[in-house]
Amino acid sequence: MKKFLIINGPNLDMLGIREPGVYGDETLDTVCEKIKARAEELGVEAAFYQSNIEGELINCIHAAMGQYDGIVMNPGAYTHYSYAIRDAIAAVHLPVVEVHISNIHQREEFRHHSVTAAVCCGQICGLGTMGYLLALEALANG
Amino acid sequence: MKKFLIINGPNLDMLGIREPGVYGDETLDTVCEKIKARAEELGVEAAFYQSNIEGELINCIHAAMGQYDGIVMNPGAYTHYSYAIRDAIAAVHLPVVEVHISNIHQREEFRHHSVTAAVCCGQICGLGTMGYLLALEALANG
Amino acid sequence: MKKFLIINGPNLDMLGIREPGVYGDETLDTVCEKIKARAEELGVEAAFYQSNIEGELINCIHAAMGQYDGIVMNPGAYTHYSYAIRDAIAAVHLPVVEVHISNIHQREEFRHHSVTAAVCCGQICGLGTMGYLLALEALANG
Amino acid sequence: MKKFLIINGPNLDMLGIREPGVYGDETLDTVCEKIKARAEELGVEAAFYQSNIEGELINCIHAAMGQYDGIVMNPGAYTHYSYAIRDAIAAVHLPVVEVHISNIHQREEFRHHSVTAAVCCGQICGLGTMGYLLALEALANG
Amino acid sequence: MKKFLIINGPNLDMLGIREPGVYGDETLDTVCEKIKARAEELGVEAAFYQSNIEGELINCIHAAMGQYDGIVMNPGAYTHYSYAIRDAIAAVHLPVVEVHISNIHQREEFRHHSVTAAVCCGQICGLGTMGYLLALEALANG
Amino acid sequence: MKKFLIINGPNLDMLGIREPGVYGDETLDTVCEKIKARAEELGVEAAFYQSNIEGELINCIHAAMGQYDGIVMNPGAYTHYSYAIRDAIAAVHLPVVEVHISNIHQREEFRHHSVTAAVCCGQICGLGTMGYLLALEALANG
Amino acid sequence: MKKFLIINGPNLDMLGIREPGVYGDETLDTVCEKIKARAEELGVEAAFYQSNIEGELINCIHAAMGQYDGIVMNPGAYTHYSYAIRDAIAAVHLPVVEVHISNIHQREEFRHHSVTAAVCCGQICGLGTMGYLLALEALANG
Amino acid sequence: MKKFLIINGPNLDMLGIREPGVYGDETLDTVCEKIKARAEELGVEAAFYQSNIEGELINCIHAAMGQYDGIVMNPGAYTHYSYAIRDAIAAVHLPVVEVHISNIHQREEFRHHSVTAAVCCGQICGLGTMGYLLALEALANG
Amino acid sequence: MKKFLIINGPNLDMLGIREPGVYGDETLDTVCEKIKARAEELGVEAAFYQSNIEGELINCIHAAMGQYDGIVMNPGAYTHYSYAIRDAIAAVHLPVVEVHISNIHQREEFRHHSVTAAVCCGQICGLGTMGYLLALEALANG
Amino acid sequence: MKKFLIINGPNLDMLGIREPGVYGDETLDTVCEKIKARAEELGVEAAFYQSNIEGELINCIHAAMGQYDGIVMNPGAYTHYSYAIRDAIAAVHLPVVEVHISNIHQREEFRHHSVTAAVCCGQICGLGTMGYLLALEALANG
Amino acid sequence: MKKFLIINGPNLDMLGIREPGVYGDETLDTVCEKIKARAEELGVEAAFYQSNIEGELINCIHAAMGQYDGIVMNPGAYTHYSYAIRDAIAAVHLPVVEVHISNIHQREEFRHHSVTAAVCCGQICGLGTMGYLLALEALANG
Amino acid sequence: MKKFLIINGPNLDMLGIREPGVYGDETLDTVCEKIKARAEELGVEAAFYQSNIEGELINCIHAAMGQYDGIVMNPGAYTHYSYAIRDAIAAVHLPVVEVHISNIHQREEFRHHSVTAAVCCGQICGLGTMGYLLALEALANG
Repeated sequence: MKKFLIINGPNLDMLGIREPGVYGDETLDTVCEKIKARAEELGVEAAFYQSNIEGELINCIHAAMGQYDGIVMNPGAYTHYSYAIRDAIAAVHLPVVEVHISNIHQREEFRHHSVTAAVCCGQICGLGTMGYLLALEALANG
Repeated sequence: MKKFLIINGPNLDMLGIREPGVYGDETLDTVCEKIKARAEELGVEAAFYQSNIEGELINCIHAAMGQYDGIVMNPGAYTHYSYAIRDAIAAVHLPVVEVHISNIHQREEFRHHSVTAAVCCGQICGLGTMGYLLALEALANG
Repeated sequence: MKKFLIINGPNLDMLGIREPGVYGDETLDTVCEKIKARAEELGVEAAFYQSNIEGELINCIHAAMGQYDGIVMNPGAYTHYSYAIRDAIAAVHLPVVEVHISNIHQREEFRHHSVTAAVCCGQICGLGTMGYLLALEALANG
Repeated sequence: MKKFLIINGPNLDMLGIREPGVYGDETLDTVCEKIKARAEELGVEAAFYQSNIEGELINCIHAAMGQYDGIVMNPGAYTHYSYAIRDAIAAVHLPVVEVHISNIHQREEFRHHSVTAAVCCGQICGLGTMGYLLALEALANG
Repeated sequence: MKKFLIINGPNLDMLGIREPGVYGDETLDTVCEKIKARAEELGVEAAFYQSNIEGELINCIHAAMGQYDGIVMNPGAYTHYSYAIRDAIAAVHLPVVEVHISNIHQREEFRHHSVTAAVCCGQICGLGTMGYLLALEALANG
Repeated sequence: MKKFLIINGPNLDMLGIREPGVYGDETLDTVCEKIKARAEELGVEAAFYQSNIEGELINCIHAAMGQYDGIVMNPGAYTHYSYAIRDAIAAVHLPVVEVHISNIHQREEFRHHSVTAAVCCGQICGLGTMGYLLALEALANG
Repeated sequence: MKKFLIINGPNLDMLGIREPGVYGDETLDTVCEKIKARAEELGVEAAFYQSNIEGELINCIHAAMGQYDGIVMNPGAYTHYSYAIRDAIAAVHLPVVEVHISNIHQREEFRHHSVTAAVCCGQICGLGTMGYLLALEALANG
Repeated sequence: MKKFLIINGPNLDMLGIREPGVYGDETLDTVCEKIKARAEELGVEAAFYQSNIEGELINCIHAAMGQYDGIVMNPGAYTHYSYAIRDAIAAVHLPVVEVHISNIHQREEFRHHSVTAAVCCGQICGLGTMGYLLALEALANG
Repeated sequence: MKKFLIINGPNLDMLGIREPGVYGDETLDTVCEKIKARAEELGVEAAFYQSNIEGELINCIHAAMGQYDGIVMNPGAYTHYSYAIRDAIAAVHLPVVEVHISNIHQREEFRHHSVTAAVCCGQICGLGTMGYLLALEALANG
Repeated sequence: MKKFLIINGPNLDMLGIREPGVYGDETLDTVCEKIKARAEELGVEAAFYQSNIEGELINCIHAAMGQYDGIVMNPGAYTHYSYAIRDAIAAVHLPVVEVHISNIHQREEFRHHSVTAAVCCGQICGLGTMGYLLALEALANG
Repeated sequence: MKKFLIINGPNLDMLGIREPGVYGDETLDTVCEKIKARAEELGVEAAFYQSNIEGELINCIHAAMGQYDGIVMNPGAYTHYSYAIRDAIAAVHLPVVEVHISNIHQREEFRHHSVTAAVCCGQICGLGTMGYLLALEALANG
Repeated sequence: MKKFLIINGPNLDMLGIREPGVYGDETLDTVCEKIKARAEELGVEAAFYQSNIEGELINCIHAAMGQYDGIVMNPGAYTHYSYAIRDAIAAVHLPVVEVHISNIHQREEFRHHSVTAAVCCGQICGLGTMGYLLALEALANG
């Protein structure tokens, strides 16, 4: 059975609390439950990790090598400047789908650009927490 | 039954012929068949339009108003400069999901930026032609 | 009797329907009626053309040569990137007044710059559909 | 009876003297006469102010509050850098139409951008001194 | 016998009429006659197409695949922004030589850059309508 | 007893009148009263100057030399372009604290940068009219 | 009694040791003592946190929600690129005053811009460690 | 006898007082005396004007028309942004030599560019107050 | 009989040796032979010069004045920064056709721009060493 | 005996695993052994630290003060944006030599610039893991 | 007796021949005669050097050390990019006055910036060949 | 025995004379002696070349082909703009190590970027003249 890791970056522990106008009011736990349910439908396994610390996210990506068949990752604001996370993704040679809950193109200028997307296989944004489910589906069928 | 329009922009009629290294070797017809099949599974209706002419794409978007519940659109290279298509999308007040077959962030600099994404509800890129299916799923469940 | 051509570009067929908060709720037909009425007061003739297709607008500008004494043109979003329309205006040696219904300087950054204005004799923006009447008046008295 | 103030900024006292190739050979007095005549036709009152001093223009805009129903303003070169005049216009909550005699888009790069236009209701340029008359008409009918 | 297609983009139908100071006073027909004559000398066949509509130019490039051995193309102002034409040229895998009648480096800043040149095999500019003949010669001997 | 000069630049005479959503509804006189009261508590003297004219602000800064122990200055919109005020501050060798009532970093792009801050000893922004009191306190204790 | 949290970011543990020419020779402990003393005068409570790790600062901001009435924060060099800290501040809906000991406008270009200031209520810089006291005062009286 | 006007802009009244490390310790009066002496040697007349107010400098330039044969001008910091002074110089059609006491190319970035130099006949910088004498000599012999 | 000078700039002495993937494997001597042969066909005379030293190329251009009827020049990498060569070309008032063997638009960013093209009559690139022959033909027939 | 600290930043724990085409196939342990061996030859002591966490690298740099005579540091991707590490290096007043295994000038644009190099004494790049040895030699002989 | 070296850079050997509309019709020899005459009046010695080769100009500057009391230099187009000449001037610690015959601020954008001016003591431009005389006078009296 | 060429560019003949604060007080001859000594220790041969003339440096690089096993090069200021030297290095397919005596990242902005580094195998800067020795060691062991 294929195994996928769902990584959430900084401030996503605040989901449902933080700026609900932008991110909706589901908590991260609720979202993880939804992803787990979909994983079962798709016949794959899903594991979860969240950290606000850039280097811990890098450690986690490294550790995924050989343990998982792919990663669904929402790097939060690190998307826009963490070349270190970019290097970590490039290093592990796993398919990574980048997910953003909100439409980053409708927000501040600095959110339009992702430094990590170029080393991912693809990116989904603006489709709410459903984006995680679609990303998992893409990896499961990929 | 919800109805969705799948719009493909310039050069997508060449799919499967044009740069298969970048876009794969499925033709547009094959892709439309796959989308139609998925639409049936999702219990929705899918219609299709392709044109290389910017203004015809605008006409088509206008005509969708009141006829469809949403649009899946791959604006091709117009993505990067057609403010006129952007205005058309904004005008019709329909949910539009922008799809790119390739990962635009791995290609030439000019492809990294989308002038249409800001008026769409979301964007999916780099997941191959599966991106159309995921976009349809997002609209159907949205 | 002097004859003037009023050309409207992409999405202006959606006037009154599209983003009324920005453009008001008059339809293009109503506006044309108002322009026709003013033309009569000014003792000039007014003809009308609208297209969403960049090249058709160019064809129309070319055709105006020798047929009209000037053009009132709202190039819509093409204002911001159509160097081809710019060349068409420069080619026909007719006085052209560029009109924008909304104040382009209060909207997105990309709307602040016009690539066509430099080859027009002047530009009017932000005065609503009255801008067309003032432009016609300027040409009639010019 | 509605009252409007016509404000002219730096170097417009040199009108008719300064670079006639660019601005024509009417003096400011002649232009004011023409505006006054048009005001009468429109059934409104027109008053006039000119200064080369940025801060005096600001004082004048402040003083217009409660005294006039709108302003026609040619800020001269201050158009391109006077954020202080911009703030003054924003402060008084009066409709202001910005006028430029020449087509600023045909001249030096620095003249293409106006820092004041975003707080005006509209802008007219390139239509010679007739621009003042059209602006007044817009305000009178607005 | 090798066959080549000569494609002319927007406003080139105005050749000889439009800005003769910049482009000379030969009409497009005269130029095509000259190209035909040279084709005969070179022992190749030349066909011609002109359109002001970006998407029609794309259609024409697509249709050339399998019909012609190469293309001489003057994309007019689309040279500077049509990423869609760029994609069309890249898609058909035919040798394309880009031609500009005037020296684009002596004109406005925006004309200095070509978005299509990178997918052509070469570019000739500033040599008048002789540029078409040289381009044909290059393809015939290439 | 130490003496400090409180200088207010363009449009601050409109305080309480101008854009109360941004600047609150206290008038400049009320603010000066509050500053005077705080000066007494701090055991220092406060004097006041306001002008909309850049050069008068420069004259005032020059005149402060030898008369005051420091300046609290809100240069209004001149903050963003008056290199002449910058030079005046640098010339008099007095400690100057720059104050902005609103948070300039939350407003238009052009307000994010101050050309005068580099020659001041410090800057306070976004803390409302309390910013003047804190600046005075900083100078009094400095 | 109102409670405020004083957060210091990277390298501020080196205060008094690090570049005393720029930051003075007080250690962070001395500064905290001064802040505590002022808090007592103001009748509020002050707590303290310092970390060099971006994600720990984010954790700390999150934890402040519901525990404190506001935050005085010196994000150190993270000020200039940590969009993740920016998001954390925006998430907790607490008033935050950003403090910089030195005048960031007199130092290297990259220090002139703050990515966090836009989500704070205000910013104080260049007034030495007194800036912390003034920020606390602003929050206490705010 | 030829007559020349020597105009000094903002902060030059502080010469000898302001930043002597940069500008030397001669006062403006001493400099004017030196210029006057040189004027006599050259057999020309020299008059003087100084103001910190941009608009007064403009008034003075206008008034010079028909009264003087040329202008030596040090626009101070207005050099770098006063398009209004630029327009005034262009308007009066007098030869103007721009003088800067210090070498503007050795100072802050913003001082490297002059917006007024393009409408002057020439510029002298970095040669101390001797620059005024050389400029006068150039005009006298020009 | 018309005489033309073929000038080759830096590193073109390495032709056939240097990066054959980019420039082909003909040596400069072989190319000169081909050009000479074509010159004979065209009934003109061709002379040759190559140097790696910028100033020697300038000397050579100067010396061509009055000796040749035109120049075919490949300025090598000097194309992208030698304003001195640009000035030399402008000084001699001879028709110059700029030639590049490779398609400079397909290579590094810095090669896309030519500082010399604006003072040449035209430019040919990407057509291999045949470009020299076409340039000569253009001059011979020009 | 002099003591030096060798600090490796993010993703360097993946050395030999991560992108061997770019970084070679030695692991970090092997490299450390090589450095240790060279240290012995040079008669100095070498200690080692690696972390993926920016703040831990800062802590480590702080802790080096008074314990080591210099630092050899490969900040990995933090090189390109960690102003916090830059401040840490500046704070400890130790000689630091920055090392990059690959030639950063041959890779993506963002890797060309180092924000830390300006506070180091020097930088070595592109010489593989030998760069660490050379850096140590430089410090030992420095 | 003080000795000064007058250095002229690329294309100045073409003076009087090259673009007389821009540079006048005096030859370099005539100008040198005029300078020599003025040197005698000033009681100083003048020597002359001209080369089109950047490195020879550098050699000449080096050789001036210890032989001359200062340099008047017109670096021609090298002004705009020769950092090598800049370094040579900085190396010899002689006062250098940069001279341009034409007003570089009225010409192409690239001529507005001098990379050498920052290491000269001053710059004179736009005053024709009289600029050399004034520069010599400045050095003689400096 | 391996042979290496040490090339020094413009102004390095002034080493020890030129700006000793930046470059130290060793002359180029002393440095060459040190390099020769190290070469012997390493069992390799070292030859030397210096020129201020860009094209002579290019000639020298060309001549090294087949004669040397590698090059240590300090291109001086040509580092920052000589695309011609870049092409020469790329042409000869020899390993080149770029050396800068000073830390180019601590100096003027324009020195931060090297146009030649991308075609070298590596770069060493800021380690004084020891940088040459380390570069030679790298090539000898490479």
